Amino acid sequence: MPQPPVKDIAFTLRRIAGLDAAMEEGLFPDLEADLVEAVLEEAARFAAERMQPLDAIGDQQGARFANGSVTMPDGWKALYRDWTAGGWNAIAGPAEFGGQELGTGLAAAVSEMWNHASMPFALGPLLTIGAVEALTKHGSDALKQVYLEKLVSGEWMGTMNLTEPQAGSDLAALRSRAERRDDSSYRIFGQKIYITYGEHDLTENIVHLVLARLPDAPAGVKGISLFLVPKFLPDESGAPGKRNDVVCHSIEHKLGIHASPTCTMLFGEGTVEGEEPGAIGWLIGEENRGLACMFTMMNNARLMVGMEGVGIADAAYDKALAYARERRQGKATRLAPGAEASGGMSPIVAHPDIARTLLTMKGLTDGARAIAFSCAVAIDRARAHGESDPDKARFWQERANLLTPVAKAFSTDVACEVASLGIHVHGGMGFVEETGAARLLRNARITPIYEGTNGIQAIDLVARKIGQSGGEAVAALFAEWRETLSELSRRNTAEFGETAALLNAALADLEAATDYLLGCLEAGETETALAGATPYLRLFGLTASGIWLAKGALADPGRVALCRFVAENLVPETAGLKRTVVSGAASLAAAHDLLVAEAM
Amino acid sequence: MPQPPVKDIAFTLRRIAGLDAAMEEGLFPDLEADLVEAVLEEAARFAAERMQPLDAIGDQQGARFANGSVTMPDGWKALYRDWTAGGWNAIAGPAEFGGQELGTGLAAAVSEMWNHASMPFALGPLLTIGAVEALTKHGSDALKQVYLEKLVSGEWMGTMNLTEPQAGSDLAALRSRAERRDDSSYRIFGQKIYITYGEHDLTENIVHLVLARLPDAPAGVKGISLFLVPKFLPDESGAPGKRNDVVCHSIEHKLGIHASPTCTMLFGEGTVEGEEPGAIGWLIGEENRGLACMFTMMNNARLMVGMEGVGIADAAYDKALAYARERRQGKATRLAPGAEASGGMSPIVAHPDIARTLLTMKGLTDGARAIAFSCAVAIDRARAHGESDPDKARFWQERANLLTPVAKAFSTDVACEVASLGIHVHGGMGFVEETGAARLLRNARITPIYEGTNGIQAIDLVARKIGQSGGEAVAALFAEWRETLSELSRRNTAEFGETAALLNAALADLEAATDYLLGCLEAGETETALAGATPYLRLFGLTASGIWLAKGALADPGRVALCRFVAENLVPETAGLKRTVVSGAASLAAAHDLLVAEAM
Repeated sequence: MPQPPVKDIAFTLRRIAGLDAAMEEGLFPDLEADLVEAVLEEAARFAAERMQPLDAIGDQQGARFANGSVTMPDGWKALYRDWTAGGWNAIAGPAEFGGQELGTGLAAAVSEMWNHASMPFALGPLLTIGAVEALTKHGSDALKQVYLEKLVSGEWMGTMNLTEPQAGSDLAALRSRAERRDDSSYRIFGQKIYITYGEHDLTENIVHLVLARLPDAPAGVKGISLFLVPKFLPDESGAPGKRNDVVCHSIEHKLGIHASPTCTMLFGEGTVEGEEPGAIGWLIGEENRGLACMFTMMNNARLMVGMEGVGIADAAYDKALAYARERRQGKATRLAPGAEASGGMSPIVAHPDIARTLLTMKGLTDGARAIAFSCAVAIDRARAHGESDPDKARFWQERANLLTPVAKAFSTDVACEVASLGIHVHGGMGFVEETGAARLLRNARITPIYEGTNGIQAIDLVARKIGQSGGEAVAALFAEWRETLSELSRRNTAEFGETAALLNAALADLEAATDYLLGCLEAGETETALAGATPYLRLFGLTASGIWLAKGALADPGRVALCRFVAENLVPETAGLKRTVVSGAASLAAAHDLLVAEAM
Repeated sequence: MPQPPVKDIAFTLRRIAGLDAAMEEGLFPDLEADLVEAVLEEAARFAAERMQPLDAIGDQQGARFANGSVTMPDGWKALYRDWTAGGWNAIAGPAEFGGQELGTGLAAAVSEMWNHASMPFALGPLLTIGAVEALTKHGSDALKQVYLEKLVSGEWMGTMNLTEPQAGSDLAALRSRAERRDDSSYRIFGQKIYITYGEHDLTENIVHLVLARLPDAPAGVKGISLFLVPKFLPDESGAPGKRNDVVCHSIEHKLGIHASPTCTMLFGEGTVEGEEPGAIGWLIGEENRGLACMFTMMNNARLMVGMEGVGIADAAYDKALAYARERRQGKATRLAPGAEASGGMSPIVAHPDIARTLLTMKGLTDGARAIAFSCAVAIDRARAHGESDPDKARFWQERANLLTPVAKAFSTDVACEVASLGIHVHGGMGFVEETGAARLLRNARITPIYEGTNGIQAIDLVARKIGQSGGEAVAALFAEWRETLSELSRRNTAEFGETAALLNAALADLEAATDYLLGCLEAGETETALAGATPYLRLFGLTASGIWLAKGALADPGRVALCRFVAENLVPETAGLKRTVVSGAASLAAAHDLLVAEAM
């Protein structure tokens, strides 16, 4: 039974992302080390014993659509029931509505485990949590009373209805519309596509959060409002009552996440007999301010999609490592201790090229985890400082803002890369579906796309995040990293090899690229800056990975070797990336005609 | 109807890989420019009009197995019939047996087109051609008379039966056995797995080339012999006669290439009623020398798997570019000429990040093509010089040997990378199977694995190829590249930007890494050298791509912009790769314990 890497998860959360330090500062009075460890152990057990065995069947059966209904794979309904009964859906929810308020850091950590076991399962609750966040921050008291407790516990699930055929990355093009009714409710009309868990049989009600325009709304993104539209309208007692005018039209046939229904949803098609058309909904937040509410969901969701990436990468590494320890081919010079050659053949893990592949997988995964958890703990710190220390709250909020696009994009790029390498380690067997390695790549491939493509994340990082507080937010992070590197230089034992020098060089590359981009933005050369956005995000992610792994290695000698491998083998990519960021834009502009010419 | 990029293909073959120069030297008397162009145009038409439309149905239906038989997808039998009737299977076969002897260069070029249209279709004939090569070079006259004409025309197809459950990359572990019979034939027994096109209904006979051991064979790879085992034993007239004792036991359920049956084959299970068990076969080449014969097939097959990579990458780029020109989202600063914003939205190709993605796809693809075609033309040159000029023949054979692992591994890595980026350009739609972008990634993922994993290719490059003739073969290639770079420096117009400086730096990186590896090998530090094999192959491929694209750009001003983009955006990765090759091995060794420790 493959267990999630609970030791690495706990160490990264507590020692690298700084949960221990924050607990020592007294920021999280409800948390203590023993509790953290207990929660993680329990989650790892549930993930491995209950969830993971149902992932393959979920992939094979997929979500099945017929007559507007979606049937989930065998065993998933019971799994979901037991998972929510264990309180896992409520881990970070507000205490007032039954949540445990254990924080985003711990939520991210357990999320990695669910995704390690079955990312298509974990995906559904991710959206429920987004709905909880949006409702908690922006919902009216009336809405909260009806919906929050059920969403926090997981009795009902939530969805995010943003995308329309003509409006994906560009929400300004959104056309779904809302009409005001007399009783402060609204009627919603329109078609939404790619709605994850838009319809299913896991819960008796589904709470859709839907972006739509009012008749008198301004054009563009400043004319979008957010509505809550339940599948069944709650009756007086709060139980699901009459069917609402929202239906699932069809589900997509996808590369991966087969068990996760990706729905086309129709609102207001007059599907409820005896009722006038229009799905009944209630406003969340203010009219025309839906985008801000939506971003409350999105930011959390982006981090949690990053956790999907880390969890898949974990799973791919664990699977590949297990195979490489068993499978014997050829004779390696280096024989693993305790792994004698049998029949003259060595386990393939003993071959340097396979070892490089596995260490690359682990290095990227551990780096991505460190980034994502650092982002999660920054969110918790911002919340903990709250109104008592608004400067610190702002500082940590900006840190979280800065790290969110990196956590989302770097982790999910890593997931695709690591899952692909995982197939490779398995050789021909990796290409056979029964092995399960290919499924991880198929599932991973959506993660760089949804919740804002990784291109959008890179643009967000460059255009909106590095410039926060005039560049001070990013400078503060770099200063923190310099401290780690100073300590590394002081402690520079032989085991670290060239780690210190190479990480210093990487940080210098990142600082130079950051200065260059900030200069472009200041000069109004947005196009030039955006041309380097994707390589910049990779540069950021690799540097962060190397330095945070060094922080971990300074705290635990058992982690020096991997840190050194990353510094000496993966981090050197930063030199080329910096060059691309600071001098690649001109050639991009020059080559652009190749792409638009009618015939080449 | 998507057309393969016939202009790019013709240009790369003629001007970069040097087919024109070789024709001018009189090396290929049967070829001339008009013929080359005509063949390419005709292949492009067949690929786009006949083959491509059947690829999606092939993926959806897949090869279907029942009762030992495989039924190919609807329309594939007629497609194969028409394709062979057009003479395409015979393009490079020996004239004595009906082949057209147009050379490996042209064969590689048309192969790219078949793979652009339907890689799972093109895969079958790839193996037939391998069988033709092995039989032509090593077969007895008697075998040639019976089999070659039919294999050259494609009337029968061929297979390669190497892998067994315990013997994949390590053929020394092979267990299938052969017994001598009185009449100079043999009886073959054993199980083979992952046999591509091992069973199907495209042709009335299938000719298996099978590796097996004789009872008195030495252990290891020096005890392996190659046998020809037909599905049906030819009768006196040469027509398929009695069934042979070889059956398909099952086919694999795979990530991709669904239409290509991947078979488990059983030899000698006593499946023919009234006959004693044992599949009847005939020796190809000498007893116990099967590996050499097999490598005759393998080398050609490796190059042609490289062409699969190029063809898939092409197709992914074409599809993504077409989508990016149509799909409108957001407002870009740069509006494409002739592509006015509609409804305020720009085609996504106008966004710098999408443009970078597309140019990265095209740059990698064009580079991979230049490498593969250069390898193909080197093979043709070696053959053309033949015995008349053995020094030149050896020179070009060593060039071909050197480039084969790069052509295989770099192209197929690029295929996975480009196909993945192609999905990304499509956004959510890329994850939906109907779009076809995901299919390309699913098909691509096998190409780094089969015909020797890319790890094996990298080891081959480092351990056997760069040391050819004491390093002179690789030095000669670098010298040729220096000439191109000298001309580039002389012609260094503003349009080239920093291309010359960056390509010179890349070549310096490659030379330094090569010297380092040769030094390791000389010092007997094989382990250290092999630790850097995979990054070295990537370094080789990127440098080759940049310099050969520069050669093209010097010949055609329309190609300067892409060359510059590659030099300024992709090639700078070489600095980090060189660093990894020359100083990454120590950390790999230090971290190795992490992989073999029982618990971490």
